[in-house]
Amino acid sequence: MLETRLDTGRIRAARLVIDPLFLDTPLYRCEGLEPGLGCAVSVKLETANPVRSFKGRGTELVAGRLIDMGARDVVCASAGNLGLALAWSGRRRGLNVAVVASRSAPAAKLDRIRALGARLELVDGDFDQARERAVDIARGDGVRLLEDSQDIETCEGAATIGLELVDAAQPVDAVLVALGGGAMATGVGHVLKALAPGVEVICVQPEGAPAMARSWHRRSVVTTGPTDTIADGVAGRRPIKAVLDDLLQVADDAVLVREESIIAGMRALLDHAGLVVEPSAALGIAAVLEDRERFAGRHVATIVCGSNVDLDSYHRWIGAASIR
Amino acid sequence: MLETRLDTGRIRAARLVIDPLFLDTPLYRCEGLEPGLGCAVSVKLETANPVRSFKGRGTELVAGRLIDMGARDVVCASAGNLGLALAWSGRRRGLNVAVVASRSAPAAKLDRIRALGARLELVDGDFDQARERAVDIARGDGVRLLEDSQDIETCEGAATIGLELVDAAQPVDAVLVALGGGAMATGVGHVLKALAPGVEVICVQPEGAPAMARSWHRRSVVTTGPTDTIADGVAGRRPIKAVLDDLLQVADDAVLVREESIIAGMRALLDHAGLVVEPSAALGIAAVLEDRERFAGRHVATIVCGSNVDLDSYHRWIGAASIR
Repeated sequence: MLETRLDTGRIRAARLVIDPLFLDTPLYRCEGLEPGLGCAVSVKLETANPVRSFKGRGTELVAGRLIDMGARDVVCASAGNLGLALAWSGRRRGLNVAVVASRSAPAAKLDRIRALGARLELVDGDFDQARERAVDIARGDGVRLLEDSQDIETCEGAATIGLELVDAAQPVDAVLVALGGGAMATGVGHVLKALAPGVEVICVQPEGAPAMARSWHRRSVVTTGPTDTIADGVAGRRPIKAVLDDLLQVADDAVLVREESIIAGMRALLDHAGLVVEPSAALGIAAVLEDRERFAGRHVATIVCGSNVDLDSYHRWIGAASIR
Repeated sequence: MLETRLDTGRIRAARLVIDPLFLDTPLYRCEGLEPGLGCAVSVKLETANPVRSFKGRGTELVAGRLIDMGARDVVCASAGNLGLALAWSGRRRGLNVAVVASRSAPAAKLDRIRALGARLELVDGDFDQARERAVDIARGDGVRLLEDSQDIETCEGAATIGLELVDAAQPVDAVLVALGGGAMATGVGHVLKALAPGVEVICVQPEGAPAMARSWHRRSVVTTGPTDTIADGVAGRRPIKAVLDDLLQVADDAVLVREESIIAGMRALLDHAGLVVEPSAALGIAAVLEDRERFAGRHVATIVCGSNVDLDSYHRWIGAASIR
């Protein structure tokens, strides 16, 4: 019996609140990728929307509920995509949005957050330090704090991706989900386990930011020292226990991948699918590249969860010679 | 009174025949593009599907009707995307597909046609020479010839894009459509003129392949000498009269753009929307870049119609330095 914090009925209802712009995203086979990966590959493309990541699904719910409650202000810490999406959803509803981010977050994300009219505060340090600062702001100003993965709306929003995967015309054998704080993994995982329990749910995290994956394997929260990965979107050090408890119920595995595999995944998505993606969005392909045997002959779906990348970094990672 | 070869009821019915993979594609504002263009810009993204262009909408209709008629074989000439899409739709239904293309068509397109199991014949010369050869094959082998833009299914398929534009949550003032043989322009144009006659339909062709645009201005078929453009998908020399007659009814303008504007459009779509596109898909942005005053303060939609591009060419056009 599945006993997570999520509820499939609420997830279905969430579809009615989320702007349709973020729903029913493309899901299609990328045969160009398949010879190199040795398995059938479908991509679920979450980048063709105004915020270029899946996070709008969750922030639409958050912003909608805050307005219903009469709130005027909200603050969040963000690696970038959550803040960007919250800024978009907030602007649409007249909600004042403040975002705390690391000074080292990609300029592409920070610039777009400012452009959408949100107040952006940068902190030295990493995402977890931004989290601390956001908590201080919320307490000091009496403003509602949105906590990614902790707040159920962020998981429910992501979970609507799971509904769309379950409804796919071509069923898949495994779904590869980028793992950071765990909102997407627990949300998508919950729906798959509830409605299509035969589908393997495999979470993928970088070796350089392994906190949640290690926690899953140890079945208790493991915090780590500084992260070291280009996948800025999933680089947290301190997993949240309630999210881990859910993840333990819905994930079949949590694997770690090397930086060079993430880059190879980004390159494969460009070369064979024509997609520019941010590193976190290539984690699924990286996992296949590192364990072809596991996936041989199977049909996997990977969620291409964001494309907010600084193109100079992208270009440096991919390498000029490889853009062909 | 609109009297084209198209019929809005038939176009609505086409939606039931086309694989849903090709329908209801993303349509969203790209605010990142807007400061540089001086107007509101929405993109209709036709690349997130297994054939990476809008052509699947038409080939789904063609292949479906051929199978209904008991046909087993079909041949077409193609700049690449039509052949690729026909190969996909044909494979799905057990139809034997032969494609004639120019030897100089992008390898990305030719390789994918072969990979989908179609018979590919290459000719020296350009698209119009491939057309002649396809006619010969059809006559010699008694095989059904699919003629892009001439055969109404190719226009009806593209026209379903128009239905989705009309249903958009945010109405637009103008739609920018790449102009080649005219299937997309007449299809989309017909629907807009029938259902949203206030929306300006602007067709865009490269200066280096201006046959249909010149024909539209002269109101009679103008053929040209060899084309000279990187926009391989729209490079024809001999417009079809019936298609021109339709275009004369549904287009408000047909503009020509320079090669450097097409490249600047491709670069803008990469830099500000994260999209890798083939040259034909950047024609709309190129048109805005060349006439900012015309579009100032308006809301335009542009159809990003394909992303099958050789990445070495793409890289050469865009220039390493600009990928940031």
